[in-house]
Amino acid sequence: MLKQTLFTAVMADFPLRLFILFITIVTPMVASSKPNIVILFSDDVGYGDLGCYGHPTSSTPNIDWLASKGILFTQFYAGTACSPSRASLLTGRLPPRTGIYPDVLTPDSTGGLPLDETTIAQLLKQQGYQTAMVGKWHLGIGRNNEYLPTNFGFSHYLGIPYSHAQCPCPTCFWPDDPCNEDACAPDFTACPLFHNDQIIEQPVDLITLNRRYAATARDFIARQSSRNRPFFLYYAFQHCHAPQFAGKQFRNSTLRGVYGDSLAEVDWSVGQVLEEIHKQGIADNTLIFFSSDNGPAIREKREGGVAGLLKCGKGSTYEGGQRVPGIAVWPGKIPAGVRTAELASTMDLLPTLAKLTGAELPSVALDGTDISSVLFNRDKSPRETFFYYPYYSSESVGVYAVRYRQYKAHYYTEGSNGSGEENSDRDCRPSATLTKHDPPLLFDLHEDPSELYNLNQEGEQYIEILNKIKRIYKKHVLTMDWAESEFLKPTDPDVQPCCNPGCQPFPSCCQCYKTQEPSNLFNTRPYFQSRNVTAP
Amino acid sequence: MLKQTLFTAVMADFPLRLFILFITIVTPMVASSKPNIVILFSDDVGYGDLGCYGHPTSSTPNIDWLASKGILFTQFYAGTACSPSRASLLTGRLPPRTGIYPDVLTPDSTGGLPLDETTIAQLLKQQGYQTAMVGKWHLGIGRNNEYLPTNFGFSHYLGIPYSHAQCPCPTCFWPDDPCNEDACAPDFTACPLFHNDQIIEQPVDLITLNRRYAATARDFIARQSSRNRPFFLYYAFQHCHAPQFAGKQFRNSTLRGVYGDSLAEVDWSVGQVLEEIHKQGIADNTLIFFSSDNGPAIREKREGGVAGLLKCGKGSTYEGGQRVPGIAVWPGKIPAGVRTAELASTMDLLPTLAKLTGAELPSVALDGTDISSVLFNRDKSPRETFFYYPYYSSESVGVYAVRYRQYKAHYYTEGSNGSGEENSDRDCRPSATLTKHDPPLLFDLHEDPSELYNLNQEGEQYIEILNKIKRIYKKHVLTMDWAESEFLKPTDPDVQPCCNPGCQPFPSCCQCYKTQEPSNLFNTRPYFQSRNVTAP
Repeated sequence: MLKQTLFTAVMADFPLRLFILFITIVTPMVASSKPNIVILFSDDVGYGDLGCYGHPTSSTPNIDWLASKGILFTQFYAGTACSPSRASLLTGRLPPRTGIYPDVLTPDSTGGLPLDETTIAQLLKQQGYQTAMVGKWHLGIGRNNEYLPTNFGFSHYLGIPYSHAQCPCPTCFWPDDPCNEDACAPDFTACPLFHNDQIIEQPVDLITLNRRYAATARDFIARQSSRNRPFFLYYAFQHCHAPQFAGKQFRNSTLRGVYGDSLAEVDWSVGQVLEEIHKQGIADNTLIFFSSDNGPAIREKREGGVAGLLKCGKGSTYEGGQRVPGIAVWPGKIPAGVRTAELASTMDLLPTLAKLTGAELPSVALDGTDISSVLFNRDKSPRETFFYYPYYSSESVGVYAVRYRQYKAHYYTEGSNGSGEENSDRDCRPSATLTKHDPPLLFDLHEDPSELYNLNQEGEQYIEILNKIKRIYKKHVLTMDWAESEFLKPTDPDVQPCCNPGCQPFPSCCQCYKTQEPSNLFNTRPYFQSRNVTAP
Repeated sequence: MLKQTLFTAVMADFPLRLFILFITIVTPMVASSKPNIVILFSDDVGYGDLGCYGHPTSSTPNIDWLASKGILFTQFYAGTACSPSRASLLTGRLPPRTGIYPDVLTPDSTGGLPLDETTIAQLLKQQGYQTAMVGKWHLGIGRNNEYLPTNFGFSHYLGIPYSHAQCPCPTCFWPDDPCNEDACAPDFTACPLFHNDQIIEQPVDLITLNRRYAATARDFIARQSSRNRPFFLYYAFQHCHAPQFAGKQFRNSTLRGVYGDSLAEVDWSVGQVLEEIHKQGIADNTLIFFSSDNGPAIREKREGGVAGLLKCGKGSTYEGGQRVPGIAVWPGKIPAGVRTAELASTMDLLPTLAKLTGAELPSVALDGTDISSVLFNRDKSPRETFFYYPYYSSESVGVYAVRYRQYKAHYYTEGSNGSGEENSDRDCRPSATLTKHDPPLLFDLHEDPSELYNLNQEGEQYIEILNKIKRIYKKHVLTMDWAESEFLKPTDPDVQPCCNPGCQPFPSCCQCYKTQEPSNLFNTRPYFQSRNVTAP
């Protein structure tokens, strides 16, 4: 029943090529070659949503195949959620340090990722990488487009720079099914598709969007590969944030309804990227990461994701909010078919990639750790801690929970909007108010990943652990510099992207479909041509 | 971190042998050969407990490997729980038909599986199979041992014929850690180890028990294989029912505490069976099933299992109670590495194996369906329904829930003792009393496997589905003949197994350790010798 894609057939002879004995002497390798880097980043895909993480009806054969060829992490954490999480991924820093808190950037935000932050793209560009981003940015636009990806090391960008939930609802499913209106925002301008800092389509056509993203990603890979230049591709899916959407091939293609169809479109896109990498013969020199920005948006009910056995969802500091799928693949370098419980985070990518490419780390406080030895040598993770900040972080409350090895102490708990008022677990509901715990709730996440059994009720044998965590907590609080919140800067309706600046009536007049090809598009063939091609 | 066993190393060259193109013309194959059959049946292992089903810290490399070589079912159901579920597995019938309801058989039960029931072992024995059972029987002993496995088609039996939780607590973890006393029963006789209908050890030594089970299973396989005779092995683990226990190799061997260690012992045993099958060169002619009797005993907290994304646990008619791991492997016949959402049940094994071996079906009402075509041809499952009976079934209430395709209608819901009073979902707690639903709660299990969103709240579009299910429900009720309950027959302390019949003071005097070798043991080397061997 699980639908196999064309990719599976194409790759039939591929597995044998991957069974190569590998010798992981990392340091000489770093000096002698620069691997291509691909980060595939999904949205609101929870710990329990993929086939390879145990979902009974999801159809994710390409991602599952990817997992079977590399390391699948079972304790992999996102920075917090949404915009804050994306800032963490790209900077290796917790959201409070970057100002990307609390909540999420909106199309009328005047703030964005501070220009003095250093992203993975900037580091890699300095190392001679060709850099491109496709998809959801969500780190600001600004009055003069100053916060767009092209200002943060990406030479090329194609995408909606925020969530498609922050625009009036367009058509979501082929051929003309309306979106779930509850998940849209009718008062903003129509969803813009940017090429670099230009709007090239408004409203964007969601039905064909992902196909164009995938074609653009393939073209970028093909072009860089043909020039033998190392590349960095950051492919951030609009999927599977509500409202769900999908093109012809994926409409009603899965058992799992609209979320399943949307996820199948992600999976197909992963297959497209893999197929191009294979076609170009560069698989052995390409490091691929797959992850997600946060846990499932359970409030969307059947149209949201699931956290599997983890407690609560998006926005929560319980595990379901921040523990996400994490997969790393590099044939011949990273062992295939490994499941690991070693601790890791999206924030570890920046220092890991810096080490791998010989880049100098930015001279700021980093919250990520180089995990090369986990990837290449199956060593114990150098990461022993994780700090949980909620979606609605504030300096007055600070960090909510601290993980040290297998233990997690909750100093504060609170329900989250993303976890839904109908959640079967009342601790997760938005109505569960902020609660301080002194002594903190203490869980052993190795024995109790669902955070059900508070060890603090079991007597004094955990005092030493609590004291250790308390010292870690205090040290962390002392070293955490809270940047000014970019989200609390005033909003301005005029900042909203509009392809007809100054038009009336605003915002509904912001509608354009430019047919000319962008002059410096990063594709060998313009992605525009594919817009009217029969859906795959 | 995930511990690899010796088996993995031994099998390093094995995968290539399994990549064989298979042509699944089932009918001629049935006529021409009789495959060996192995059923591996774990206890209280839930949908979310294995690595291949998404658990973050379980160590199950052998079971995961098994899954990668065959079909992993994501919608596979046990009959209900405990004794009733075991009756369902072996007879292909729902518990009410067999009298194995409500609750569970105890050591002093005078009832047992009715002698006119036909088991898989009896069917296969009639087809020339050598038959053996190792492990937990739990279908009765009786005043004259009349309900032991040897009366139901098993030529050989070694095991505790009920749960080790139904005896005084022996030592549970190497070298001498006491058991979790809450999970033991001090008023019964010590746990007996039976060889056929003789007690050969009382109390049984749990530390070495599983190693002896595994050695016995291997010896049986080796002996039958050397004679070129088809065999049926039913290996029913005492694990992972509380109290958890494990030998030297597994004590503190996993991240997941005592449940993890206990599960690792199961996994090692699976590896032992696979290793022997490989060693004998009979993998291509051996069909292996792995499953579990019911969902997790959540009431055991950190010492119990988990249901993953499913609702509630053991004893419940919510999915977590009865949807369990299900894996089927037969290299060259069953495709490798497939995850399927096709419906299947432990009750389908009897008719499937009958079809496969040419056995005639018993002339009774069967609740199982031949699923050969799902296994061999990846066809749609002929099973479209499933009927959910609770652990404490009664004719006055009858069936609690009915599944039809992806839909499940709950006519009754009730908390379950096995799901624990501290369950984060109040619907699962024992304090959730029996509730009739009219109209029934309706869930789409493909989109909502966690049973969170009642479709009956969404208006009239589901009336047709409900009417269809109502017809199925009524027809089922009409065709369900409730046998007299074997569990409600009077208990008798004298029925308890005792190696010194008539001794005093009873029951503590029932202690023996017989050093002589059983005369007709089904091993090439007596398992007894391994008792004092250094633990593996």
